[in-house]
Amino acid sequence: MDVQVFTRDDVRHLLKMPRAIELMRDAFAALSAGRIESPIRTTLTNDHGTVLYKPAWSAAQSLFCAKVVSVFPGNADKELPVTPGIIVLNDGQTGMPVGLLEAGFLTSLRTGAATGLATDLLAKPNASTAALFGTGGQAWHQLEAMLCVRELKRVYVFSGHEENAVRFSEEMSDLIKGCELLPAPNRDVLTECDIITTATTSPNPVFSDQEIGDAVHINAIGSLGPLRSEIPPATILRATVIVDQREAGLREAGELLPLMEDGRLPPDFAPAELGELVLNKDYSAERPVTVFKSAGNAVQDLVCAAEVLKLAEDAGRGQTVQF
Amino acid sequence: MDVQVFTRDDVRHLLKMPRAIELMRDAFAALSAGRIESPIRTTLTNDHGTVLYKPAWSAAQSLFCAKVVSVFPGNADKELPVTPGIIVLNDGQTGMPVGLLEAGFLTSLRTGAATGLATDLLAKPNASTAALFGTGGQAWHQLEAMLCVRELKRVYVFSGHEENAVRFSEEMSDLIKGCELLPAPNRDVLTECDIITTATTSPNPVFSDQEIGDAVHINAIGSLGPLRSEIPPATILRATVIVDQREAGLREAGELLPLMEDGRLPPDFAPAELGELVLNKDYSAERPVTVFKSAGNAVQDLVCAAEVLKLAEDAGRGQTVQF
Repeated sequence: MDVQVFTRDDVRHLLKMPRAIELMRDAFAALSAGRIESPIRTTLTNDHGTVLYKPAWSAAQSLFCAKVVSVFPGNADKELPVTPGIIVLNDGQTGMPVGLLEAGFLTSLRTGAATGLATDLLAKPNASTAALFGTGGQAWHQLEAMLCVRELKRVYVFSGHEENAVRFSEEMSDLIKGCELLPAPNRDVLTECDIITTATTSPNPVFSDQEIGDAVHINAIGSLGPLRSEIPPATILRATVIVDQREAGLREAGELLPLMEDGRLPPDFAPAELGELVLNKDYSAERPVTVFKSAGNAVQDLVCAAEVLKLAEDAGRGQTVQF
Repeated sequence: MDVQVFTRDDVRHLLKMPRAIELMRDAFAALSAGRIESPIRTTLTNDHGTVLYKPAWSAAQSLFCAKVVSVFPGNADKELPVTPGIIVLNDGQTGMPVGLLEAGFLTSLRTGAATGLATDLLAKPNASTAALFGTGGQAWHQLEAMLCVRELKRVYVFSGHEENAVRFSEEMSDLIKGCELLPAPNRDVLTECDIITTATTSPNPVFSDQEIGDAVHINAIGSLGPLRSEIPPATILRATVIVDQREAGLREAGELLPLMEDGRLPPDFAPAELGELVLNKDYSAERPVTVFKSAGNAVQDLVCAAEVLKLAEDAGRGQTVQF
């Protein structure tokens, strides 16, 4: 049994952000249209961390995809990745395992790509200023995605640790063109921002509702879990909220669940899905503040992994491993 | 990220049936004692087949294990394995992927090993004659397991296709010593059998209750699903039934579910688990006919895969693949 193996470098080489954003368009449309099956993930937890098993099936790609990804916060101290993972691809015609991919880079890329799609669909066409909260593993791809879909002139970087914002801005400035990347000098600049992206591990809101402007698009892709919320309730309540998948969003997002439980959001609260926006060409958000809350979906991994498999053939990347 | 890869040959070389049966003893005891977590498997199905995702966690081995196994009956016509699969192992301390194993050989071995354990615990100590129904992918390890735990003088091979019974008996006779392996000449020989093992894909009983003796141990490891039953209801009703895991057994076994639904078995029917027999040294079956019905459990994969990982280090087997 021969299986193609793709390293982190293979994935990085083969799949770029603009293409990943295109893929998200099709993926989320397929998810909302019920053309992709992605059952609830299984989790196993011990004292050190959690391993998540996220399977999905898509007829369009004729592939089964399962991401096995661990979340072990203590790994940071051991110089190991905090969220190491592997993706297993099985052929739709034969069920044979056909691909194994390093999952860390792909996860970060596809999470950025979802932000790119949401920003493209919801931010002002002439958006010029953005804020990025968080300088961790997701930050670069979040930044890259925003820059892919809007001609930003300036991005302010916020971090719980000032020195991280400085370091990130310095390091990443070399990688981007035509846009000024700088550590946020103060919180007043938030009112200038047309786009705010939060990619932190903070359990509490990273800004207050008074600090942001009257018309802004927010991508909230960080902290997940019913007791964690990067976005203040007051912002949620005055925004049009969009999720990647309704069921998961309402179950897992600490931005939404507590507000439904205490009655500030109606019990039948049903935010639109990102894919529904893609499918409905006439969509326009009701309110000037929009929040895209992402829980992450296995469909994102599936379409990106399928694309890697496809591109690798032409590019001659990947290694055949015999099982 | 470096991961150890083990081929089918590596697994075959490293793990032998006697050791696998020992491992099942510990594994099923741990499962029944609640020391192993193996949540309900996830399945994804298309027109061609099903992919099953079976995760488990064990503190004793400090490993997470997930088997991704496909069941694609049409593969037989394509000269491909009908149940190809891969096992993913993650370290309990760091969550890092540490091993990838070909799953087909291991699945067959561990399924045989469960039969070996059940037979050791339940068959007459002086059992000398057995019957094996089925000559497919599971048959050899079922035979090997019975021979590991009882000094059998004769094993009769039954198949829906007479020529398969002849071929299997001829081919496998060379591999075993001190035991006569022969295609069953007729069904009368079933009354002689102290042990009957069924490993078929038959949806219907492969023998009738009148055909078997008054004191016999039966291993039913084949057809699975609420509408499939290799064993006749009359046999189930006069037997002491043992399952690998109560919840899965009652949900998935066509030998049991319909009898509970139509009232022939009580609604609170609770067969003992194999691990409970291991834990209870004083156990003896109430009835002279015993049936071990196996649905297969992820714990079997976990303990075998963990052992392969351990033995490989000393033996210098396996290939390091960089992700």
